[in-house]
Amino acid sequence: MNRVEIEKRVLSENDALAARLREALNGAGTLCLNFIGAPGAGKTAFLERTLERLPIHTRAAVLTGDIQTENDAIRLQRYGYPVRQICTAGACHLDARMVDKHLDGWLSKGLRLLFIENVGNLVCPTSYDLGEDAKIVVMSVTEGEDKPLKYPGIFRKAELMILNKIDLLPHVPFNAELACANARHIHPQIEIIETSCTTGAGFDRWLEWLAARAKRKKASAKPLAEAVPVS
Amino acid sequence: MNRVEIEKRVLSENDALAARLREALNGAGTLCLNFIGAPGAGKTAFLERTLERLPIHTRAAVLTGDIQTENDAIRLQRYGYPVRQICTAGACHLDARMVDKHLDGWLSKGLRLLFIENVGNLVCPTSYDLGEDAKIVVMSVTEGEDKPLKYPGIFRKAELMILNKIDLLPHVPFNAELACANARHIHPQIEIIETSCTTGAGFDRWLEWLAARAKRKKASAKPLAEAVPVS
Repeated sequence: MNRVEIEKRVLSENDALAARLREALNGAGTLCLNFIGAPGAGKTAFLERTLERLPIHTRAAVLTGDIQTENDAIRLQRYGYPVRQICTAGACHLDARMVDKHLDGWLSKGLRLLFIENVGNLVCPTSYDLGEDAKIVVMSVTEGEDKPLKYPGIFRKAELMILNKIDLLPHVPFNAELACANARHIHPQIEIIETSCTTGAGFDRWLEWLAARAKRKKASAKPLAEAVPVS
Repeated sequence: MNRVEIEKRVLSENDALAARLREALNGAGTLCLNFIGAPGAGKTAFLERTLERLPIHTRAAVLTGDIQTENDAIRLQRYGYPVRQICTAGACHLDARMVDKHLDGWLSKGLRLLFIENVGNLVCPTSYDLGEDAKIVVMSVTEGEDKPLKYPGIFRKAELMILNKIDLLPHVPFNAELACANARHIHPQIEIIETSCTTGAGFDRWLEWLAARAKRKKASAKPLAEAVPVS
């Protein structure tokens, strides 16, 4: 078996497990979002600001992936939601097996929102289905407008692009209009929200998107906030 | 053969080709530097400022890797040095085979400096030897101080860390001292140069490093600038 065949087999095994995960998430009515972006795009800060602003008693949880350290889990745990760190110990992406293993017990408690922060990497995480409802690509205004053209895979697969760190626009030579046009060139239907975790800009729109997306999830006809705590 | 075995075989095939490449580069007296960093760390801008400031007639050339687009080659070609784009068409890293293929004809012309800009990715490129004399990791002050702890592989293997975009320090909550301490925690001997491609800060020190490193390369007792053009 050559490398391409092995890669195909690994992806097909992953896809099979991801399909089972998706079924379990659907059964539990959990909206699952997979955040992908370069190292330093601001994924963790974005999730911090999100947790801070969620309606009280929202049954949300976070899985955060990194090659090493528990740093992101420690940052995210401050907001009172259950958070688990996935240390990939060298692997450049999360896979369905890691998610499945770390979800242990959460779904049975009626989780409504599951945020997955992938390893900082614009390439490899794109190929691994985690059973999510949507991939969200996070890019920042310090990265260059042509990132969607250079890394088309993730921009093609993402339902939403977060253009982050817009508070830095006065200090960097970045044309936000061009970046958005490039993203739409790759994926005409992509939705785009511009945000700043420093000023809070864009978070009202993001939380509206999140509420609407949760509503679209069939089983989430149930209210987002209920009494059963997830721990 | 399972995935780990295949991965090992691919890496060992790569290592064998990289060893042959290294021999060829040594024979030609070419100093080869492999730049690795996240998407948006500023690798291309750093190479632009470097080419702009090289002593006239320096026999330098650039291989620049991306998944898609020739954008970086177009940017780099403006400085009068030979530049070739390596499009990986999906692959998340450069390998020795790609470098070997794109070097075609350069070494026989007495190339003194070969800059390789890897695909924007802090993880996968680390594992692939390209026959280089040194890996250089580029991180920017917009990325968070704990990147060396989260992505230890590349910081362990890099001889030099470029801490880029220091002109943005007044606008971001980044502690440069802590970032450097983290890098040295992973790799006590790592050299660090702080740079800004906007203001030119740090480039005198970087060009001194480059000249010293070229001098250390045995065969580069020959002067860096000679009459034979590389095209």
